[in-house]
Amino acid sequence: MSFDVIAFDAYGTLFDVFSVTELCETLCRGKGPALAQLWRSKQLQYSLLRSLMGRYENFWKITEDALVYAARFLGIDLTLHQRKQLMDAYLYLSLFPDVKPGLEALRARGVRLAILSNGAPEMLRAAADNAGIASLFEAMLSADEVRVFKPDPRVYRMACDRLDVPEGNVGFVSANAWDVSGAASAGLTSFWIQRVAAEPPEQLDHRASRIVSTITELADLAQHRATA
Amino acid sequence: MSFDVIAFDAYGTLFDVFSVTELCETLCRGKGPALAQLWRSKQLQYSLLRSLMGRYENFWKITEDALVYAARFLGIDLTLHQRKQLMDAYLYLSLFPDVKPGLEALRARGVRLAILSNGAPEMLRAAADNAGIASLFEAMLSADEVRVFKPDPRVYRMACDRLDVPEGNVGFVSANAWDVSGAASAGLTSFWIQRVAAEPPEQLDHRASRIVSTITELADLAQHRATA
Repeated sequence: MSFDVIAFDAYGTLFDVFSVTELCETLCRGKGPALAQLWRSKQLQYSLLRSLMGRYENFWKITEDALVYAARFLGIDLTLHQRKQLMDAYLYLSLFPDVKPGLEALRARGVRLAILSNGAPEMLRAAADNAGIASLFEAMLSADEVRVFKPDPRVYRMACDRLDVPEGNVGFVSANAWDVSGAASAGLTSFWIQRVAAEPPEQLDHRASRIVSTITELADLAQHRATA
Repeated sequence: MSFDVIAFDAYGTLFDVFSVTELCETLCRGKGPALAQLWRSKQLQYSLLRSLMGRYENFWKITEDALVYAARFLGIDLTLHQRKQLMDAYLYLSLFPDVKPGLEALRARGVRLAILSNGAPEMLRAAADNAGIASLFEAMLSADEVRVFKPDPRVYRMACDRLDVPEGNVGFVSANAWDVSGAASAGLTSFWIQRVAAEPPEQLDHRASRIVSTITELADLAQHRATA
């Protein structure tokens, strides 16, 4: 495995979007997990729907719209203050435990690292700063630049352009199986971090070149190939 | 309410996609409702993902891919015969109770009727024939014609072209709130059949011109305006 750059998806891959569940539960007793789940699935659905409708709004707006919908659907009456608290939680998401050691191991092997996310630039910057990983990345690239979301191929290709490397030299890593398919379909070599062991791959033709369970495992692969 | 043509979404609007639940339960004891729900949500997700990826496959293929994914995710080992039985069930979906009387009332008032669906032409034809409503429609229009799915505006505009009426003279009816937003965003006057009373509208800017609870109610509106 030898790439000039490895680009990582952010939400669900580096940042655990379900680290908001505890606050959801504190604010909406008994409905926390349901709110966190629906919030996330609506966020993804709105990113797809708006892209297809040609009605782009940035991911911060979409995340807030998804929260409003999810709360209403579940019969939760969020105050403006509570809504703000939940949105702010998106700027302080936890990292999965393998993220920091895995990224550091890749950096130590001389691999250039980037983020390629649907997230708005300010969201990404804040989340990476607050999690203490910002300095590991040479670029944080946002779909906002092309005003359409992944898995539109323009987002993945924008990354190759901005990183100034050909598609074949960019590895893309995501824990979201649909995102892995999208990147592979756009010509990138993609790696699926299968964070839930029993999760099947998407039935979308374009699959991961390799499936790993952690970013640390990915770093080990990079080493093995380098020394082979 | 005066339109030359009213176009109806098919799945979830005319046909109850959850009428497959009983067969799901018969074939996969204890997991029927979960299979039916995940099958449907994956079907919708794949239609969006493939559209955005520029990797169109028709809705029959997508429906089967979604079934395969849903079964695997739930740890169900479907035989090829069982898979075929479930796919065939999609050609014999039940109508919601208001559909036939509502459509007949609209026809009696001289309104031209059409279907505008993501469904592949053969799927739509079979489902409408088997449900005994095919003769009520002057056209069954499929997203297959433009090889991209709703809510891409090209699908809604194709309908106006094919029905040979300006966008303003086509009413669009769907029970899928995202589909209502998509049609409204593309310039059609859209009506939301809110089949689940507590369901909130989508947070997508473009909303229904009117919300009704049944197609019969829509037919009544048409009459009231005509006599006003």
